[in-house]
Amino acid sequence: MSIMELRSFVAGEWHGADGSARDIRSAVTGEVIARAGAKLDYQAMLDEGRERGSPSLRAMTFHERAAALKALALYLSERKDRLYDLSLLAGSTRGDAMIDVDGGIGTLFALSSKARRTLPDDVVLPDGELEMLSRDGTFLGHHIYTSRQGVAVHINAFNFPVWGMLEKLAPTLLGGMSAIVKPATATAYITEACFQMMIECGAFPDGSFQLITGGTGDLLDRLDASDLVSFTGSAETALMLRSNSNLMARSVPFIAEQDSLNASVLGPDVTTDALEFDLFVKEVVREMTAKAGQKCTAIRRVIAPAGMVDPLVDAISAKLSKIAIGDPALEGVRMGALASADQKKDVLEKAAMIGSEAKRVFGTDDPELHGDGVENGAFVSPMLYRCDSPDAANKVHEAEAFGPVSTIMPYRDLDHAVSLMNRGKGSLVASLITHDPTVARRVAIGAGAWHGRLYMNDRDSMKASTGHGSPLPLLVHGGPGRAGGGEELGGMRGVKHYMQRTAVQGSPDMIAAVTGQYVPGAAKTDADVHPFAKKFEDLRIGESITAGPRTITKEDVEHFAEFTGDTFYAHMNEEAAKASPFFDGRVAHGYLLLAFAAGLFVHPDPGPTLANTGLSDLRFTKPVYFGEAISVSLTVKEKRPTGKGYGEVLWHVGITDSEGDQVAGYTLHTMNASRED
Amino acid sequence: MSIMELRSFVAGEWHGADGSARDIRSAVTGEVIARAGAKLDYQAMLDEGRERGSPSLRAMTFHERAAALKALALYLSERKDRLYDLSLLAGSTRGDAMIDVDGGIGTLFALSSKARRTLPDDVVLPDGELEMLSRDGTFLGHHIYTSRQGVAVHINAFNFPVWGMLEKLAPTLLGGMSAIVKPATATAYITEACFQMMIECGAFPDGSFQLITGGTGDLLDRLDASDLVSFTGSAETALMLRSNSNLMARSVPFIAEQDSLNASVLGPDVTTDALEFDLFVKEVVREMTAKAGQKCTAIRRVIAPAGMVDPLVDAISAKLSKIAIGDPALEGVRMGALASADQKKDVLEKAAMIGSEAKRVFGTDDPELHGDGVENGAFVSPMLYRCDSPDAANKVHEAEAFGPVSTIMPYRDLDHAVSLMNRGKGSLVASLITHDPTVARRVAIGAGAWHGRLYMNDRDSMKASTGHGSPLPLLVHGGPGRAGGGEELGGMRGVKHYMQRTAVQGSPDMIAAVTGQYVPGAAKTDADVHPFAKKFEDLRIGESITAGPRTITKEDVEHFAEFTGDTFYAHMNEEAAKASPFFDGRVAHGYLLLAFAAGLFVHPDPGPTLANTGLSDLRFTKPVYFGEAISVSLTVKEKRPTGKGYGEVLWHVGITDSEGDQVAGYTLHTMNASRED
Repeated sequence: MSIMELRSFVAGEWHGADGSARDIRSAVTGEVIARAGAKLDYQAMLDEGRERGSPSLRAMTFHERAAALKALALYLSERKDRLYDLSLLAGSTRGDAMIDVDGGIGTLFALSSKARRTLPDDVVLPDGELEMLSRDGTFLGHHIYTSRQGVAVHINAFNFPVWGMLEKLAPTLLGGMSAIVKPATATAYITEACFQMMIECGAFPDGSFQLITGGTGDLLDRLDASDLVSFTGSAETALMLRSNSNLMARSVPFIAEQDSLNASVLGPDVTTDALEFDLFVKEVVREMTAKAGQKCTAIRRVIAPAGMVDPLVDAISAKLSKIAIGDPALEGVRMGALASADQKKDVLEKAAMIGSEAKRVFGTDDPELHGDGVENGAFVSPMLYRCDSPDAANKVHEAEAFGPVSTIMPYRDLDHAVSLMNRGKGSLVASLITHDPTVARRVAIGAGAWHGRLYMNDRDSMKASTGHGSPLPLLVHGGPGRAGGGEELGGMRGVKHYMQRTAVQGSPDMIAAVTGQYVPGAAKTDADVHPFAKKFEDLRIGESITAGPRTITKEDVEHFAEFTGDTFYAHMNEEAAKASPFFDGRVAHGYLLLAFAAGLFVHPDPGPTLANTGLSDLRFTKPVYFGEAISVSLTVKEKRPTGKGYGEVLWHVGITDSEGDQVAGYTLHTMNASRED
Repeated sequence: MSIMELRSFVAGEWHGADGSARDIRSAVTGEVIARAGAKLDYQAMLDEGRERGSPSLRAMTFHERAAALKALALYLSERKDRLYDLSLLAGSTRGDAMIDVDGGIGTLFALSSKARRTLPDDVVLPDGELEMLSRDGTFLGHHIYTSRQGVAVHINAFNFPVWGMLEKLAPTLLGGMSAIVKPATATAYITEACFQMMIECGAFPDGSFQLITGGTGDLLDRLDASDLVSFTGSAETALMLRSNSNLMARSVPFIAEQDSLNASVLGPDVTTDALEFDLFVKEVVREMTAKAGQKCTAIRRVIAPAGMVDPLVDAISAKLSKIAIGDPALEGVRMGALASADQKKDVLEKAAMIGSEAKRVFGTDDPELHGDGVENGAFVSPMLYRCDSPDAANKVHEAEAFGPVSTIMPYRDLDHAVSLMNRGKGSLVASLITHDPTVARRVAIGAGAWHGRLYMNDRDSMKASTGHGSPLPLLVHGGPGRAGGGEELGGMRGVKHYMQRTAVQGSPDMIAAVTGQYVPGAAKTDADVHPFAKKFEDLRIGESITAGPRTITKEDVEHFAEFTGDTFYAHMNEEAAKASPFFDGRVAHGYLLLAFAAGLFVHPDPGPTLANTGLSDLRFTKPVYFGEAISVSLTVKEKRPTGKGYGEVLWHVGITDSEGDQVAGYTLHTMNASRED
């Protein structure tokens, strides 16, 4: 096999490795398989990102960015076998590679879909509620997110060469920022292959992403406050990078995901014959051995009721003993190699530190290996340590052996279990296997603040559960303290890290213009034809009709009550209604108001308005008594394309009484057909 | 007047100044008025906060914390004259003092009220939507916030001794964290007086807040990842503090609000005879002179169309010339002193830097002063500089003269104005005076990412507007880059900085237990009596009734259409309904389903359920055709006390068809009477 010369992608050009390149070795055989590193023009990369990539992305709406993300995901999906093959060289089994490759592509799909469903087809993202800053409604506040105008620098870890790149890129690109990707050198050949596909795909504008295989030189010294660094790796490297004086002086955001001594707790309710016992054992063994334990989210600390430690050691050891170790290309091999000889050395050092406080109850220094030519590979045995005095111990809570190494420790009661969980001083994920919801609540309250994710599992969810160690695109990934204090993913939460939140104040017209959404009090335009007769694309924000008045009679209310069965006393019993703190007498049903309002504003003819799909934020603000006349206004508030031949239209509906006071306000959701061209 | 010996409040005890104390001088006369500083037991303060204050606060629900905040606000409100009096010594006019004192108390009221209206009566705060992590609904995700378990260290600036303390304390206490407050020494006598009232008030548990007048010693070296630092002050001090190796190594969050060269832009649409011209002049003069320009949010850069610079200089100068300067206790004085001689020196130095690039067009080195004994006070004249080449200049965009100093500069077109706004490299607030909404949108998109707040104003909002320089409790305060990259306030957004967001995964029962809210699929309990007949306190989360079935006939739909006027084709025209991508034929009205559902579940007798106040998140998920029978379930999802004799109950309503499929789901809001005891 020839040695791969890894390239970087700088301002639209590929640059090969140069004399400064370093060797990369196979995790399985120890042979040199690739070279990476070159002197690059970092300023040209920043200029390309700031002046070409980011402006091009900012000119696209969220929906356009989401569509490009989906196209990219489809393109990679068709080519993923190449990435599985390369992953073998990093010691990864097919299962390991799927976590990385399919996990990464799945993140693109999931975030693309979530973006289309929840973000506007615009470049401005409104945040939260409209705030009434004056009683008369002429001065309002609203928060918005707009794209940060610089470049995101992604510094990724060796363990997920594909997922690590894509899980950071997806929110960055959705947020309208270009990125410079710097993978860890040990597995950069997999990242480079994936990146090459991304460039070939062409779904994103020029300059949207660039690649550094090798060192970052003085890149960080050149960043400013509009840029951002997102880092995954060791605490030591994180500290070195985030201490960069330029980053500090300019308040450049630094998102870190670093060490984590993740815990898994067996609930006090679980007995050895419970389904949860087997589930717990299965989760622990999977987390110890998947990716040979090289996951930031792997279980490092197994925390169990004191009486359960012996049976757990037996059950876990029994399963670990069946794990075949060796060349991941071989059928039957369940655990491959660590990513490099350096990693193996580091894992053994950390295991020895743990060994100074805990006894090794499973594992060997010299595991049996399957395959040929693997004697120089970075293989280690799964190792289970047992620490019977976890309060007095430190290393078991601090030393992250980044391999198939866990320590089991006993707890006395649930408070003790929580205190042991929190001894990790901040983690990405902690899990709890219990069938008792009160245990779940106590653990969430006691330990939540120290953990980025709490994974709970029991007999009810075990079939559908996704595993302790799997970050999911729709849930946040990151954690406080030792875990770095950062946060990624979490659906659209992660996108917002690449944008700036800004409070906007102004008149209704200004707020409507800035957010791209109608707000009460802003200028409306009278619709030329009934808006229900308009196709999605032809509807304009602020386009409005009014209808009514219609008088609501006692007979209407009594008829409605009889017809529907809703004979609630506030509608039917004068004395009881008067006794309420809200009413001066019998009032019309809220649903009668909604129905009459619809009767006033609907356009009965067949047309592009296809269906009423829902309603949100309905508030009844003033009672309507018998004899009162209501009017209604229907105004286009917001439009959300679906890409399916129709789009969702959100309408502001205001129902007013004869004094002009609002009696009800809400947002109506419809689907309207698109133009056919 | 005797010299005030300022005290610190450490673990429940007051500690006086000791030999290490420093003198504090009157801003008006230069005389020594106070002494502050002592060696304190910082570890005891942390222990008190971590082991007493924070746990006590965490044991209170959000509503209990909000009630304590309101009690504190009321207590301070009755005693604020004392704070106005002390503020005179800092050079503040009554108007200046009101910004500080009433602004601070108002923040307590506003956040207390917002918390009661929007947070649950619980210690866990759910965030965002429920995420379906499996198709079968047995494995769900939800995000929660729980309180960080350490202590918040607040390091405040000299310019707002009361507001600065209270605007940080309110979200901290609501978030369930205790705080150690360290005011800037120059005006610490005002903070100490306010703090003493807070202790006397007793609204919060012991240990909720402690005070350091003087230095912080090695306090920062003792913090860990559960603690937090929130700083307001200079960029220089911020950089020194945030570089602390312990804070860096432990990922201790550091929220900074530092320098800011805030800009105000006059829109290209504004002519000298427009209302917006006068409005702009008024805002600029107010921001230059209020608090003698000692506001982080004051206007430092006035950006105007090239042709408007001359008329603006004239108009601004005319108004500035009428500002009487001197002893703030005197009637008629409109601008008092800077806070200290050090501040005066700094302002004059920065003004000289600006003067190297810009011409002073208003102001004098030797202003006329009103009052006796003020010759040693820290008075300066308002100074307006004019910079005609702002692209070539640097100091005017970088040097923050923290006093009544602004620079006016011309722009060519709106893109140029935006580029000048962004030359500040990150600010707390920028304003735009325009009557053209398209200008507002272009500025928001072009400049939003560089500014924490965009204040827009015109003839429509000018009467109700709150001023360029006023941070509001419900809007975020903070900004990127030079402004420090932090964020405070913003309603409940600021509270979340004192909590940790955690993703929680599990079965519906686990998610319901953790969040304290019913989620679909979680265990329900059959109500013993109809839940509408129960008082607020007696309703239990998950308590449920089911009702139905009721068949929906063609006659029902036609009758409903005729009665309400809602003759939409999907209900009335078989052929047109069939042509829709959503329906196979005529369907029942959504509002008919709602009304029939209510008819099925309501309890008609007078009782504690007082009113239906609204409805949210309604989705119609499956069409209902003629002859189909619907059933409905009504389940207590969440309870929100109002403190008014009744509470808001949120009910999950699910309408299902004869196949058990959900046809509609929503959250119903009612008000239920409280028990009278």
